[in-house]
Amino acid sequence: MKRKLSLIGAGPGDPELITLKGIKALQSAQVILYDALVHPDLLNYAAAESLKIFVGKRKGFKAYTQEEIHELIVHYATHYGHVARLKGGDPFLFGRGYEEWLYAQQHGIEVEIIPGVSSAIAVPELQHIPVTLRGISESCWITTATIADGQLSNDLQLAAHSSATIVVLMGVHKLPEIVALYRHLKKADMPIAIIQNGSLPEEKIVVGYMDNILEKAAAAHIQSPAIIVIGEVVRTHLQFERDACIDEAIVSAAHAH
Amino acid sequence: MKRKLSLIGAGPGDPELITLKGIKALQSAQVILYDALVHPDLLNYAAAESLKIFVGKRKGFKAYTQEEIHELIVHYATHYGHVARLKGGDPFLFGRGYEEWLYAQQHGIEVEIIPGVSSAIAVPELQHIPVTLRGISESCWITTATIADGQLSNDLQLAAHSSATIVVLMGVHKLPEIVALYRHLKKADMPIAIIQNGSLPEEKIVVGYMDNILEKAAAAHIQSPAIIVIGEVVRTHLQFERDACIDEAIVSAAHAH
Repeated sequence: MKRKLSLIGAGPGDPELITLKGIKALQSAQVILYDALVHPDLLNYAAAESLKIFVGKRKGFKAYTQEEIHELIVHYATHYGHVARLKGGDPFLFGRGYEEWLYAQQHGIEVEIIPGVSSAIAVPELQHIPVTLRGISESCWITTATIADGQLSNDLQLAAHSSATIVVLMGVHKLPEIVALYRHLKKADMPIAIIQNGSLPEEKIVVGYMDNILEKAAAAHIQSPAIIVIGEVVRTHLQFERDACIDEAIVSAAHAH
Repeated sequence: MKRKLSLIGAGPGDPELITLKGIKALQSAQVILYDALVHPDLLNYAAAESLKIFVGKRKGFKAYTQEEIHELIVHYATHYGHVARLKGGDPFLFGRGYEEWLYAQQHGIEVEIIPGVSSAIAVPELQHIPVTLRGISESCWITTATIADGQLSNDLQLAAHSSATIVVLMGVHKLPEIVALYRHLKKADMPIAIIQNGSLPEEKIVVGYMDNILEKAAAAHIQSPAIIVIGEVVRTHLQFERDACIDEAIVSAAHAH
């Protein structure tokens, strides 16, 4: 029996945003190990007799540690053959796919890498926010809010000094610290958007400035997981223009009195 | 007749790295407007009677300006109905997809955005180089080498100060300036990889340090379009380890004499 691992990026959420290569790997696998952010419809591509095992995190609790997932990959590849490891977004962007590739390959398992559509770019895009735009933003910096030890990422602090569009993954719980950082840099007027459940029917967005985003996010009941976009490109968002108009109208009305 | 535009990301090159949603849009479109970096096999998804029009750049010459492409979108949507705009990588990351979305939408055309697998993340990934890696790189900065006026991007100069993995798109022609920048910052020992034709059978990679990458790229005849990856994560690449061993062996041999 041939031992094989397919590391598959499932994309941002919408089940039609998986690649053709990802679908083919799901169809031929004997075992599917899938994460929490993977759309359940994707499991329908798997053969009826295949094993489908949830290995993600639910309500803050991990079904398995990363090390246990490595062991599961080797175990199932050895006893069943072809294992499909289905991960949200892209497996190599904060996805720990590299670690799984390395472990499997050190155990003599053939690994096929199947990149996915990254939420970092696609989720703003589906809200018509381009992470780069000629004359506005020449680069895009993708980061997480915290590093392994839970501290606010140094890179995020450095990024705040740049003119790049900043995309923060897994950062909603650090929103107050992010706002404080921009206030400290006298950039309280920086546009920011937060998108929850991007690419799915229950998608939700709030747009504003550092100065008012905490109130807006609270009012809209924004929760993790969500993607934060910081930069001038956020001004392109239609809702932002509308909100700015409303703000102006309020200011004008206030002045008139 | 319903006027519609589908903005489709074709992915990094491998025709199986297009999304299911992208394939469906190609199948239903009456007109396909496609770019140079799009794999020709993708046109096979289109209906036999559909118009397939090349609008990209070949040998440095543009078939159409960006403004002409905008006009073509409106023209074909008006006279044929559903237009599929097929672009390499992802349409909103340096893809000018936003401008096409905006123009079509201002002309009352319904626009569907279909994100693609971005070459910036997927091409290093297919070479087993993770753009982020716990403990090594907490963020990823995607940029082009030059801005609209042809100057070396300011963001690139700022990024060189950071600890992020830097992915430079469309930057091979600026490689000498990039190397000079890192030498100036006393970072000549920074690992760098250049990947040409990523995800395709003719894929080619060179890995090295800023100090020797110009010679290596010249020896390997690396040409545009190629993707440059700068950062400690490049050390994960197997060829890098092998080259480093060879370098060490040469140094040891030199010391022995």
